[in-house]
Amino acid sequence: MINKESISEYFKTLQDSICQQLESIESVAKFEEDLWERDGGGGGRTRVIRKGKVFAKGGVNFSAVHGKTPESILKALKLPPNDFFATGVSIVIHPLNPCAPIIHMNVRYFEMSDGTFWFGGGIDLTPIYIDQKNATFFHNELKTVCDKYKDNAYNEFKKWADDYFYLPHRNETRGVGGIFFDRQSGDKEKTFDFVKEVGELFAPTYLKILEGKINLPYDSHQLKWQSLRRSRYVEFNLLHDKGTKFGLDTNGRTESILMSMPPVAEWDYCHTPIEGSEEELTQSLLKKDIDWTKY
Amino acid sequence: MINKESISEYFKTLQDSICQQLESIESVAKFEEDLWERDGGGGGRTRVIRKGKVFAKGGVNFSAVHGKTPESILKALKLPPNDFFATGVSIVIHPLNPCAPIIHMNVRYFEMSDGTFWFGGGIDLTPIYIDQKNATFFHNELKTVCDKYKDNAYNEFKKWADDYFYLPHRNETRGVGGIFFDRQSGDKEKTFDFVKEVGELFAPTYLKILEGKINLPYDSHQLKWQSLRRSRYVEFNLLHDKGTKFGLDTNGRTESILMSMPPVAEWDYCHTPIEGSEEELTQSLLKKDIDWTKY
Repeated sequence: MINKESISEYFKTLQDSICQQLESIESVAKFEEDLWERDGGGGGRTRVIRKGKVFAKGGVNFSAVHGKTPESILKALKLPPNDFFATGVSIVIHPLNPCAPIIHMNVRYFEMSDGTFWFGGGIDLTPIYIDQKNATFFHNELKTVCDKYKDNAYNEFKKWADDYFYLPHRNETRGVGGIFFDRQSGDKEKTFDFVKEVGELFAPTYLKILEGKINLPYDSHQLKWQSLRRSRYVEFNLLHDKGTKFGLDTNGRTESILMSMPPVAEWDYCHTPIEGSEEELTQSLLKKDIDWTKY
Repeated sequence: MINKESISEYFKTLQDSICQQLESIESVAKFEEDLWERDGGGGGRTRVIRKGKVFAKGGVNFSAVHGKTPESILKALKLPPNDFFATGVSIVIHPLNPCAPIIHMNVRYFEMSDGTFWFGGGIDLTPIYIDQKNATFFHNELKTVCDKYKDNAYNEFKKWADDYFYLPHRNETRGVGGIFFDRQSGDKEKTFDFVKEVGELFAPTYLKILEGKINLPYDSHQLKWQSLRRSRYVEFNLLHDKGTKFGLDTNGRTESILMSMPPVAEWDYCHTPIEGSEEELTQSLLKKDIDWTKY
Protein backbone atom coordinates (compact mmCIF):
# COMPACT_ATOMS: atom_id res chain seq x y z
CA MET A 1 0.00 0.00 0.00
CA ILE A 2 1.16 3.49 -0.80
CA ASN A 3 1.17 5.72 2.26
CA LYS A 4 3.43 8.38 3.71
CA GLU A 5 5.61 5.77 5.39
CA SER A 6 6.18 3.75 2.23
CA ILE A 7 6.83 6.87 0.15
CA SER A 8 9.32 8.19 2.66
CA GLU A 9 11.02 4.76 2.85
CA TYR A 10 11.29 4.73 -0.94
CA PHE A 11 12.91 8.19 -0.95
CA LYS A 12 15.50 6.92 1.54
CA THR A 13 16.44 4.03 -0.72
CA LEU A 14 16.53 6.44 -3.67
CA GLN A 15 18.97 8.65 -1.76
CA ASP A 16 21.14 5.59 -1.02
CA SER A 17 21.12 4.46 -4.61
CA ILE A 18 21.94 7.92 -6.04
CA CYS A 19 24.82 8.45 -3.59
CA GLN A 20 26.24 5.05 -4.49
CA GLN A 21 26.02 5.72 -8.23
CA LEU A 22 27.62 9.17 -7.93
CA GLU A 23 30.43 7.77 -5.78
CA SER A 24 31.16 5.21 -8.50
CA ILE A 25 32.84 7.87 -10.67
CA GLU A 26 34.46 9.79 -7.81
CA SER A 27 37.88 8.50 -6.74
CA VAL A 28 38.78 11.04 -4.06
CA ALA A 29 35.72 12.12 -2.03
CA LYS A 30 32.93 10.22 -0.30
CA PHE A 31 29.53 11.44 0.87
CA GLU A 32 29.49 12.51 4.51
CA GLU A 33 26.21 12.11 6.37
CA ASP A 34 24.55 14.39 8.90
CA LEU A 35 21.36 13.29 10.61
CA TRP A 36 19.22 16.12 11.93
CA GLU A 37 15.95 16.60 13.74
CA ARG A 38 13.49 19.38 13.20
CA ASP A 39 11.92 21.36 16.04
CA GLY A 40 8.26 20.68 15.46
CA GLY A 41 8.60 17.21 13.97
CA GLY A 42 10.64 14.97 11.74
CA GLY A 43 14.11 15.45 10.37
CA GLY A 44 16.47 14.39 7.65
CA ARG A 45 19.59 12.78 6.35
CA THR A 46 21.88 15.31 4.68
CA ARG A 47 24.66 13.84 2.53
CA VAL A 48 27.35 16.14 1.26
CA ILE A 49 30.31 15.41 -1.00
CA ARG A 50 33.20 17.89 -1.15
CA LYS A 51 36.59 18.53 -2.72
CA GLY A 52 36.38 15.52 -4.98
CA LYS A 53 38.14 14.93 -8.28
CA VAL A 54 34.75 15.03 -10.05
CA PHE A 55 32.52 16.80 -7.52
CA ALA A 56 33.58 20.17 -6.12
CA LYS A 57 30.53 20.33 -3.86
CA GLY A 58 27.23 18.54 -3.88
CA GLY A 59 24.39 17.48 -1.66
CA VAL A 60 21.92 14.61 -1.86
CA ASN A 61 19.41 15.27 0.88
CA PHE A 62 16.52 13.25 2.24
CA SER A 63 13.98 14.67 4.65
CA ALA A 64 10.64 13.72 6.16
CA VAL A 65 9.08 16.42 8.29
CA HIS A 66 5.67 16.98 9.85
CA GLY A 67 3.82 19.45 12.01
CA LYS A 68 1.21 22.17 11.82
CA THR A 69 0.51 23.14 8.20
CA PRO A 70 1.98 26.59 7.39
CA GLU A 71 -0.58 29.43 7.26
CA SER A 72 0.34 30.25 3.65
CA ILE A 73 -0.81 26.82 2.42
CA LEU A 74 -4.00 26.80 4.52
CA LYS A 75 -4.89 30.27 3.27
CA ALA A 76 -4.28 29.43 -0.40
CA LEU A 77 -6.46 26.33 -0.16
CA LYS A 78 -9.02 27.89 2.23
CA LEU A 79 -8.55 25.13 4.80
CA PRO A 80 -8.93 25.18 8.59
CA PRO A 81 -5.78 24.44 10.67
CA ASN A 82 -4.49 20.89 10.18
CA ASP A 83 -1.26 18.89 10.14
CA PHE A 84 1.11 18.25 7.26
CA PHE A 85 3.67 15.65 6.32
CA ALA A 86 6.32 16.30 3.68
CA THR A 87 9.08 14.06 2.41
CA GLY A 88 11.50 14.21 -0.48
CA VAL A 89 14.95 14.02 -1.97
CA SER A 90 16.77 17.20 -3.06
CA ILE A 91 19.99 17.27 -5.01
CA VAL A 92 22.35 19.95 -6.30
CA ILE A 93 25.75 18.94 -7.70
CA HIS A 94 28.55 21.37 -8.61
CA PRO A 95 31.26 19.52 -10.56
CA LEU A 96 34.88 20.65 -10.50
CA ASN A 97 35.44 20.66 -14.26
CA PRO A 98 33.91 23.73 -15.96
CA CYS A 99 33.08 21.56 -18.97
CA ALA A 100 30.67 19.56 -16.78
CA PRO A 101 27.18 20.92 -16.01
CA ILE A 102 25.64 21.68 -12.63
CA ILE A 103 22.52 19.59 -12.01
CA HIS A 104 19.51 19.82 -9.72
CA MET A 105 16.86 17.23 -8.97
CA ASN A 106 13.99 17.17 -6.51
CA VAL A 107 11.17 14.70 -5.89
CA ARG A 108 8.71 15.30 -3.11
CA TYR A 109 5.43 14.23 -1.55
CA PHE A 110 3.14 16.37 0.60
CA GLU A 111 -0.02 15.43 2.46
CA MET A 112 -2.33 16.99 5.03
CA SER A 113 -4.44 15.41 7.77
CA ASP A 114 -7.61 16.23 5.77
CA GLY A 115 -6.50 13.73 3.11
CA THR A 116 -5.21 16.24 0.55
CA PHE A 117 -1.97 15.05 -1.05
CA TRP A 118 0.28 15.83 -3.98
CA PHE A 119 3.58 14.96 -5.56
CA GLY A 120 6.01 17.44 -7.07
CA GLY A 121 9.50 17.58 -8.44
CA GLY A 122 11.83 18.55 -11.21
CA ILE A 123 15.22 18.14 -12.82
CA ASP A 124 17.19 20.83 -14.59
CA LEU A 125 20.64 21.00 -16.11
CA THR A 126 22.86 24.09 -15.86
CA PRO A 127 25.86 23.78 -18.17
CA ILE A 128 28.72 26.25 -17.81
CA TYR A 129 29.24 25.61 -21.53
CA ILE A 130 26.13 24.35 -23.32
CA ASP A 131 26.70 21.11 -25.23
CA GLN A 132 23.72 20.89 -27.51
CA LYS A 133 24.02 17.11 -27.99
CA ASN A 134 23.94 16.59 -24.24
CA ALA A 135 20.96 18.93 -23.86
CA THR A 136 19.10 16.89 -26.47
CA PHE A 137 20.03 13.60 -24.79
CA PHE A 138 18.92 14.98 -21.40
CA HIS A 139 15.57 16.28 -22.66
CA ASN A 140 14.78 13.10 -24.57
CA GLU A 141 15.41 11.01 -21.46
CA LEU A 142 12.95 13.24 -19.58
CA LYS A 143 10.43 13.14 -22.41
CA THR A 144 10.34 9.32 -22.42
CA VAL A 145 9.54 9.18 -18.71
CA CYS A 146 7.04 12.08 -18.79
CA ASP A 147 5.05 10.84 -21.76
CA LYS A 148 4.65 7.42 -20.15
CA TYR A 149 2.98 9.20 -17.21
CA LYS A 150 0.42 11.11 -19.26
CA ASP A 151 -0.18 12.62 -22.70
CA ASN A 152 1.71 15.82 -23.32
CA ALA A 153 3.32 15.71 -19.86
CA TYR A 154 6.78 16.47 -21.24
CA ASN A 155 5.59 19.60 -23.06
CA GLU A 156 3.67 20.75 -20.00
CA PHE A 157 6.47 20.12 -17.50
CA LYS A 158 9.20 21.42 -19.85
CA LYS A 159 7.34 24.73 -20.20
CA TRP A 160 6.85 24.81 -16.43
CA ALA A 161 10.64 24.42 -16.02
CA ASP A 162 11.33 27.17 -18.59
CA ASP A 163 9.11 29.52 -16.61
CA TYR A 164 10.38 28.43 -13.21
CA PHE A 165 14.15 28.21 -13.74
CA TYR A 166 14.28 31.75 -15.08
CA LEU A 167 16.07 34.90 -13.87
CA PRO A 168 13.91 37.87 -14.93
CA HIS A 169 16.53 40.44 -13.88
CA ARG A 170 19.04 38.77 -16.21
CA ASN A 171 16.49 37.88 -18.88
CA GLU A 172 18.01 34.42 -19.04
CA THR A 173 17.14 30.86 -18.08
CA ARG A 174 19.26 29.12 -15.44
CA GLY A 175 20.53 26.63 -18.00
CA VAL A 176 18.99 24.33 -20.61
CA GLY A 177 16.01 23.65 -18.35
CA GLY A 178 14.41 20.26 -17.90
CA ILE A 179 11.10 19.53 -16.22
CA PHE A 180 9.22 21.00 -13.25
CA PHE A 181 5.90 19.78 -11.86
CA ASP A 182 3.84 20.37 -8.72
CA ARG A 183 0.49 19.48 -7.15
CA GLN A 184 0.18 16.19 -9.04
CA SER A 185 -2.68 14.58 -7.16
CA GLY A 186 -4.49 12.24 -9.54
CA ASP A 187 -4.10 8.44 -9.40
CA LYS A 188 -1.73 8.03 -6.45
CA GLU A 189 -0.08 4.84 -7.69
CA LYS A 190 0.46 6.16 -11.21
CA THR A 191 1.82 9.47 -9.97
CA PHE A 192 4.15 7.77 -7.51
CA ASP A 193 5.40 5.52 -10.33
CA PHE A 194 6.19 8.61 -12.38
CA VAL A 195 8.00 10.30 -9.50
CA LYS A 196 10.01 7.09 -8.97
CA GLU A 197 11.00 7.04 -12.62
CA VAL A 198 12.13 10.67 -12.46
CA GLY A 199 14.18 9.90 -9.37
CA GLU A 200 15.74 6.79 -10.92
CA LEU A 201 16.49 8.52 -14.21
CA PHE A 202 18.65 11.12 -12.48
CA ALA A 203 21.87 9.24 -11.71
CA PRO A 204 22.38 7.25 -14.94
CA THR A 205 21.53 10.29 -17.08
CA TYR A 206 23.85 12.62 -15.21
CA LEU A 207 26.64 10.02 -15.09
CA LYS A 208 26.45 9.57 -18.85
CA ILE A 209 26.84 13.34 -19.32
CA LEU A 210 29.66 13.56 -16.76
CA GLU A 211 31.60 10.70 -18.36
CA GLY A 212 32.07 12.75 -21.50
CA LYS A 213 33.23 15.84 -19.61
CA ILE A 214 35.18 15.12 -16.44
CA ASN A 215 38.43 14.24 -18.19
CA LEU A 216 38.47 17.22 -20.54
CA PRO A 217 41.31 19.69 -19.97
CA TYR A 218 40.43 23.24 -18.90
CA ASP A 219 42.15 26.53 -18.21
CA SER A 220 41.81 29.54 -15.92
CA HIS A 221 39.63 31.36 -18.46
CA GLN A 222 37.06 28.55 -18.27
CA LEU A 223 37.29 28.48 -14.48
CA LYS A 224 36.53 32.21 -14.39
CA TRP A 225 33.43 31.69 -16.55
CA GLN A 226 32.39 28.83 -14.26
CA SER A 227 32.61 31.15 -11.24
CA LEU A 228 30.52 33.77 -13.02
CA ARG A 229 27.87 31.22 -14.01
CA ARG A 230 27.84 29.86 -10.47
CA SER A 231 26.97 33.35 -9.22
CA ARG A 232 23.85 33.21 -11.39
CA TYR A 233 23.01 29.93 -9.65
CA VAL A 234 23.32 31.77 -6.32
CA GLU A 235 21.07 34.57 -7.58
CA PHE A 236 18.39 32.11 -8.69
CA ASN A 237 18.43 30.09 -5.49
CA LEU A 238 18.34 33.04 -3.11
CA LEU A 239 15.98 35.27 -5.14
CA HIS A 240 13.58 32.74 -6.68
CA ASP A 241 13.88 29.13 -5.58
CA LYS A 242 10.67 28.20 -3.75
CA GLY A 243 12.19 25.28 -1.86
CA THR A 244 14.94 27.52 -0.49
CA LYS A 245 12.45 30.20 0.59
CA PHE A 246 10.03 27.67 2.10
CA GLY A 247 12.86 25.96 3.94
CA LEU A 248 14.35 29.15 5.38
CA ASP A 249 10.93 30.63 6.23
CA THR A 250 9.79 27.52 8.08
CA ASN A 251 12.90 27.30 10.23
CA GLY A 252 14.47 24.48 8.21
CA ARG A 253 18.07 23.41 8.67
CA THR A 254 20.04 26.22 7.01
CA GLU A 255 23.13 24.19 6.16
CA SER A 256 21.06 21.48 4.47
CA ILE A 257 19.06 24.04 2.48
CA LEU A 258 22.10 26.05 1.41
CA MET A 259 24.14 22.99 0.42
CA SER A 260 22.86 24.08 -3.01
CA MET A 261 25.27 27.03 -2.99
CA PRO A 262 28.38 26.59 -5.15
CA PRO A 263 31.77 26.29 -3.44
CA VAL A 264 32.87 29.60 -4.98
CA ALA A 265 31.12 32.32 -7.01
CA GLU A 266 32.31 35.51 -8.65
CA TRP A 267 30.54 38.73 -9.58
CA ASP A 268 32.09 40.95 -12.19
CA TYR A 269 30.41 44.29 -12.96
CA CYS A 270 28.98 44.25 -16.52
CA HIS A 271 30.82 41.12 -17.63
CA THR A 272 30.20 40.51 -21.34
CA PRO A 273 31.47 37.41 -23.18
CA ILE A 274 33.75 38.08 -26.15
CA GLU A 275 31.98 38.06 -29.50
CA GLY A 276 32.09 34.69 -31.20
CA SER A 277 33.37 32.93 -28.06
CA GLU A 278 32.06 29.70 -26.53
CA GLU A 279 30.84 31.80 -23.61
CA GLU A 280 28.80 34.01 -25.91
CA LEU A 281 27.28 30.93 -27.58
CA THR A 282 26.18 29.59 -24.18
CA GLN A 283 24.80 32.99 -23.18
CA SER A 284 22.79 33.18 -26.42
CA LEU A 285 21.15 29.81 -25.68
CA LEU A 286 19.89 30.73 -22.20
CA LYS A 287 16.40 31.29 -23.54
CA LYS A 288 12.94 29.87 -22.95
CA ASP A 289 11.04 27.85 -25.56
CA ILE A 290 13.99 26.12 -27.22
CA ASP A 291 12.90 22.64 -28.31
CA TRP A 292 15.96 20.78 -27.03
CA THR A 293 14.58 17.37 -28.04
CA LYS A 294 15.29 18.19 -31.67
CA TYR A 295 18.34 20.38 -31.48
CA MET B 1 14.25 76.19 -1.59
CA ILE B 2 14.28 72.44 -1.00
CA ASN B 3 12.60 70.53 -3.79
CA LYS B 4 13.21 67.33 -5.68
CA GLU B 5 15.58 69.07 -8.08
CA SER B 6 17.74 70.57 -5.35
CA ILE B 7 17.81 67.32 -3.37
CA SER B 8 18.80 65.35 -6.43
CA GLU B 9 21.47 67.94 -7.30
CA TYR B 10 22.83 67.66 -3.77
CA PHE B 11 23.03 63.85 -4.04
CA LYS B 12 25.06 64.24 -7.24
CA THR B 13 27.59 66.47 -5.52
CA LEU B 14 27.67 64.03 -2.59
CA GLN B 15 28.48 61.20 -5.01
CA ASP B 16 31.29 63.31 -6.53
CA SER B 17 32.73 64.16 -3.15
CA ILE B 18 32.62 60.57 -1.85
CA CYS B 19 34.27 59.18 -4.98
CA GLN B 20 37.02 61.79 -4.72
CA GLN B 21 37.66 61.03 -1.06
CA LEU B 22 37.77 57.26 -1.62
CA GLU B 23 40.14 57.66 -4.58
CA SER B 24 42.48 59.65 -2.35
CA ILE B 25 43.66 56.46 -0.61
CA GLU B 26 43.59 54.23 -3.70
CA SER B 27 46.75 54.26 -5.80
CA VAL B 28 45.87 51.72 -8.49
CA ALA B 29 42.19 51.94 -9.46
CA LYS B 30 39.87 54.80 -10.39
CA PHE B 31 36.08 54.97 -10.46
CA GLU B 32 34.59 54.17 -13.87
CA GLU B 33 31.29 55.82 -14.70
CA ASP B 34 28.24 54.44 -16.51
CA LEU B 35 25.31 56.70 -17.26
CA TRP B 36 22.01 54.90 -17.73
CA GLU B 37 18.40 55.74 -18.44
CA ARG B 38 15.38 53.98 -17.06
CA ASP B 39 12.45 52.87 -19.23
CA GLY B 40 9.62 54.78 -17.63
CA GLY B 41 11.60 57.80 -16.49
CA GLY B 42 14.88 59.03 -15.09
CA GLY B 43 18.20 57.28 -14.80
CA GLY B 44 21.44 57.27 -12.95
CA ARG B 45 25.17 57.57 -12.70
CA THR B 46 26.79 54.30 -11.63
CA ARG B 47 30.40 54.55 -10.48
CA VAL B 48 32.34 51.37 -9.91
CA ILE B 49 35.89 50.86 -8.68
CA ARG B 50 37.61 47.52 -9.25
CA LYS B 51 40.82 45.62 -8.68
CA GLY B 52 42.41 48.37 -6.64
CA LYS B 53 45.12 48.08 -4.04
CA VAL B 54 42.61 49.13 -1.35
CA PHE B 55 39.27 48.42 -3.02
CA ALA B 56 38.58 44.98 -4.48
CA LYS B 57 35.15 46.04 -5.73
CA GLY B 58 32.88 48.89 -4.86
CA GLY B 59 30.09 51.04 -6.20
CA VAL B 60 29.00 54.59 -5.44
CA ASN B 61 25.72 55.02 -7.30
CA PHE B 62 23.50 58.01 -7.85
CA SER B 63 20.02 57.73 -9.33
CA ALA B 64 16.96 59.92 -9.85
CA VAL B 65 13.98 58.06 -11.28
CA HIS B 66 10.32 58.86 -11.74
CA GLY B 67 7.14 57.34 -13.12
CA LYS B 68 3.91 55.74 -12.01
CA THR B 69 4.00 54.91 -8.30
CA PRO B 70 4.29 51.11 -7.76
CA GLU B 71 1.03 49.38 -6.75
CA SER B 72 2.61 48.07 -3.52
CA ILE B 73 3.18 51.61 -2.19
CA LEU B 74 -0.25 52.90 -3.28
CA LYS B 75 -1.91 49.91 -1.63
CA ALA B 76 0.00 50.26 1.64
CA LEU B 77 -0.89 53.94 1.88
CA LYS B 78 -4.41 53.55 0.44
CA LEU B 79 -3.76 56.10 -2.31
CA PRO B 80 -5.20 56.40 -5.81
CA PRO B 81 -2.76 56.07 -8.76
CA ASN B 82 -0.20 58.89 -8.87
CA ASP B 83 3.39 59.58 -9.88
CA PHE B 84 6.57 59.17 -7.86
CA PHE B 85 10.05 60.62 -7.85
CA ALA B 86 12.93 58.90 -6.07
CA THR B 87 16.55 59.94 -5.79
CA GLY B 88 19.49 58.76 -3.73
CA VAL B 89 23.05 57.63 -3.34
CA SER B 90 23.84 53.97 -2.65
CA ILE B 91 27.24 52.62 -1.71
CA VAL B 92 28.75 49.22 -1.03
CA ILE B 93 32.54 48.83 -0.75
CA HIS B 94 34.42 45.53 -0.57
CA PRO B 95 38.05 46.17 0.40
CA LEU B 96 40.84 43.81 -0.65
CA ASN B 97 42.44 43.39 2.77
CA PRO B 98 40.47 40.99 5.01
CA CYS B 99 41.39 43.14 8.01
CA ALA B 100 39.33 46.00 6.51
CA PRO B 101 35.53 46.03 6.88
CA ILE B 102 32.89 46.06 4.14
CA ILE B 103 30.70 49.16 4.34
CA HIS B 104 27.28 50.16 3.05
CA MET B 105 25.64 53.56 2.96
CA ASN B 106 22.40 54.79 1.45
CA VAL B 107 20.62 58.14 1.55
CA ARG B 108 17.38 58.60 -0.36
CA TYR B 109 14.42 60.87 -0.95
CA PHE B 110 10.99 59.81 -2.21
CA GLU B 111 7.98 61.93 -3.11
CA MET B 112 4.63 61.46 -4.80
CA SER B 113 2.53 63.84 -6.87
CA ASP B 114 0.00 64.11 -4.01
CA GLY B 115 2.65 65.89 -1.92
CA THR B 116 3.65 62.95 0.28
CA PHE B 117 7.42 62.79 0.80
CA TRP B 118 9.96 61.10 2.97
CA PHE B 119 13.70 60.65 3.48
CA GLY B 120 15.40 57.39 4.35
CA GLY B 121 18.85 55.91 4.62
CA GLY B 122 21.38 54.04 6.65
CA ILE B 123 24.99 53.08 7.16
CA ASP B 124 26.29 49.78 8.44
CA LEU B 125 29.73 48.30 8.88
CA THR B 126 30.52 44.64 8.18
CA PRO B 127 33.97 43.72 9.48
CA ILE B 128 35.50 40.40 8.45
CA TYR B 129 37.27 40.61 11.81
CA ILE B 130 35.50 42.80 14.35
CA ASP B 131 37.72 45.51 15.82
CA GLN B 132 35.83 46.67 18.88
CA LYS B 133 37.59 50.04 19.03
CA ASN B 134 36.61 50.76 15.44
CA ALA B 135 33.02 49.68 16.07
CA THR B 136 32.87 52.10 19.00
CA PHE B 137 34.37 54.93 16.95
CA PHE B 138 31.92 54.23 14.11
CA HIS B 139 28.86 54.15 16.36
CA ASN B 140 29.86 57.29 18.24
CA GLU B 141 30.25 59.18 14.96
CA LEU B 142 26.74 58.10 14.02
CA LYS B 143 25.37 58.94 17.45
CA THR B 144 26.65 62.52 17.27
CA VAL B 145 24.90 63.15 13.95
CA CYS B 146 21.68 61.36 14.93
CA ASP B 147 21.23 63.06 18.28
CA LYS B 148 21.64 66.48 16.66
CA TYR B 149 18.65 65.58 14.45
CA LYS B 150 16.30 64.62 17.27
CA ASP B 151 16.22 63.25 20.81
CA ASN B 152 16.94 59.55 21.02
CA ALA B 153 17.40 59.27 17.24
CA TYR B 154 20.58 57.22 17.59
CA ASN B 155 18.93 54.65 19.87
CA GLU B 156 15.92 54.44 17.57
CA PHE B 157 17.90 54.15 14.33
CA LYS B 158 20.53 51.84 15.84
CA LYS B 159 17.80 49.41 16.92
CA TRP B 160 16.23 49.71 13.45
CA ALA B 161 19.60 48.73 11.93
CA ASP B 162 19.99 45.78 14.34
CA ASP B 163 16.60 44.48 13.24
CA TYR B 164 17.11 45.24 9.55
CA PHE B 165 20.70 44.06 8.93
CA TYR B 166 19.93 40.64 10.36
CA LEU B 167 20.02 37.13 8.87
CA PRO B 168 17.36 35.09 10.68
CA HIS B 169 18.43 31.80 9.06
CA ARG B 170 21.94 32.32 10.46
CA ASN B 171 20.79 33.92 13.70
CA GLU B 172 23.42 36.58 13.21
CA THR B 173 23.67 40.27 12.35
CA ARG B 174 25.39 41.27 9.11
CA GLY B 175 28.15 43.01 11.04
CA VAL B 176 28.39 45.54 13.85
CA GLY B 177 25.33 47.38 12.53
CA GLY B 178 25.00 51.12 12.38
CA ILE B 179 21.84 53.09 11.70
CA PHE B 180 18.78 52.58 9.51
CA PHE B 181 15.86 54.98 9.08
CA ASP B 182 12.93 55.34 6.71
CA ARG B 183 9.78 57.44 6.18
CA GLN B 184 11.26 60.53 7.87
CA SER B 185 8.75 63.15 6.83
CA GLY B 186 8.70 65.84 9.48
CA ASP B 187 10.36 69.25 9.01
CA LYS B 188 11.76 68.96 5.48
CA GLU B 189 14.72 71.26 6.02
CA LYS B 190 15.75 69.67 9.29
CA THR B 191 15.39 66.15 7.88
CA PHE B 192 17.35 67.03 4.76
CA ASP B 193 20.09 68.54 6.96
CA PHE B 194 20.28 65.25 8.86
CA VAL B 195 20.44 63.19 5.68
CA LYS B 196 23.22 65.46 4.40
CA GLU B 197 25.19 64.97 7.60
CA VAL B 198 24.83 61.19 7.33
CA GLY B 199 26.03 61.34 3.73
CA GLU B 200 28.97 63.57 4.57
CA LEU B 201 29.96 61.51 7.58
CA PHE B 202 30.45 58.42 5.45
CA ALA B 203 33.75 59.05 3.67
CA PRO B 204 35.85 60.53 6.50
CA THR B 205 34.65 57.90 8.96
CA TYR B 206 35.32 54.99 6.62
CA LEU B 207 38.69 56.42 5.54
CA LYS B 208 39.78 56.69 9.15
CA ILE B 209 38.91 53.03 9.72
CA LEU B 210 40.58 51.95 6.46
CA GLU B 211 43.79 53.84 7.25
CA GLY B 212 44.41 51.59 10.24
CA LYS B 213 43.78 48.40 8.27
CA ILE B 214 44.83 48.52 4.64
CA ASN B 215 48.54 48.09 5.31
CA LEU B 216 48.19 45.16 7.71
CA PRO B 217 49.66 41.86 6.48
CA TYR B 218 47.29 38.93 5.91
CA ASP B 219 47.42 35.28 4.92
CA SER B 220 45.36 32.72 3.01
CA HIS B 221 43.53 31.68 6.17
CA GLN B 222 42.21 35.24 6.58
CA LEU B 223 41.31 35.42 2.88
CA LYS B 224 39.28 32.23 3.23
CA TRP B 225 37.36 33.72 6.18
CA GLN B 226 36.80 36.87 4.13
CA SER B 227 35.26 34.80 1.31
CA LEU B 228 32.99 33.01 3.77
CA ARG B 229 31.85 36.29 5.34
CA ARG B 230 31.28 37.76 1.90
CA SER B 231 28.87 34.89 1.15
CA ARG B 232 26.80 36.02 4.13
CA TYR B 233 26.71 39.47 2.54
CA VAL B 234 25.36 37.84 -0.63
CA GLU B 235 22.73 35.98 1.38
CA PHE B 236 21.57 39.16 3.09
CA ASN B 237 21.39 41.22 -0.09
CA LEU B 238 19.55 38.62 -2.16
CA LEU B 239 17.26 37.30 0.59
CA HIS B 240 16.49 40.42 2.62
CA ASP B 241 17.74 43.75 1.27
CA LYS B 242 14.68 45.86 0.42
CA GLY B 243 16.54 48.14 -1.99
CA THR B 244 17.75 45.15 -3.99
CA LYS B 245 14.28 43.59 -4.12
CA PHE B 246 12.60 46.91 -4.99
CA GLY B 247 15.18 47.58 -7.69
CA LEU B 248 14.95 44.16 -9.31
CA ASP B 249 11.14 44.04 -9.04
CA THR B 250 10.70 47.47 -10.65
CA ASN B 251 12.91 46.69 -13.63
CA GLY B 252 15.90 48.64 -12.32
CA ARG B 253 19.35 48.37 -13.88
CA THR B 254 20.54 44.94 -12.71
CA GLU B 255 24.27 45.67 -12.92
CA SER B 256 23.89 48.84 -10.84
CA ILE B 257 21.78 47.06 -8.22
CA LEU B 258 24.07 44.05 -7.98
CA MET B 259 27.25 46.11 -7.80
CA SER B 260 26.74 45.36 -4.09
CA MET B 261 27.81 41.75 -4.64
CA PRO B 262 31.36 40.92 -3.53
CA PRO B 263 33.98 40.06 -6.16
CA VAL B 264 34.21 36.49 -4.83
CA ALA B 265 32.29 34.50 -2.23
CA GLU B 266 32.67 31.00 -0.83
CA TRP B 267 30.21 28.59 0.74
CA ASP B 268 31.54 25.81 2.92
CA TYR B 269 29.09 23.27 4.32
CA CYS B 270 28.87 23.62 8.13
CA HIS B 271 31.95 25.81 8.50
CA THR B 272 32.70 26.39 12.19
CA PRO B 273 35.49 28.71 13.41
CA ILE B 274 38.14 27.11 15.61
CA GLU B 275 37.55 27.57 19.34
CA GLY B 276 39.35 30.59 20.74
CA SER B 277 40.21 31.95 17.26
CA GLU B 278 39.77 35.51 15.99
CA GLU B 279 37.06 34.14 13.67
CA GLU B 280 35.14 32.71 16.61
CA LEU B 281 35.39 36.02 18.45
CA THR B 282 33.91 37.86 15.46
CA GLN B 283 31.17 35.24 15.09
CA SER B 284 30.27 35.61 18.78
CA LEU B 285 29.82 39.38 18.38
CA LEU B 286 27.35 39.17 15.47
CA LYS B 287 24.45 39.85 17.81
CA LYS B 288 21.73 42.45 18.18
CA ASP B 289 21.54 44.86 21.11
CA ILE B 290 25.25 45.31 21.73
CA ASP B 291 25.87 48.88 22.90
CA TRP B 292 28.87 49.57 20.68
CA THR B 293 29.16 53.20 21.84
CA LYS B 294 30.53 51.98 25.17
CA TYR B 295 32.41 48.85 24.25
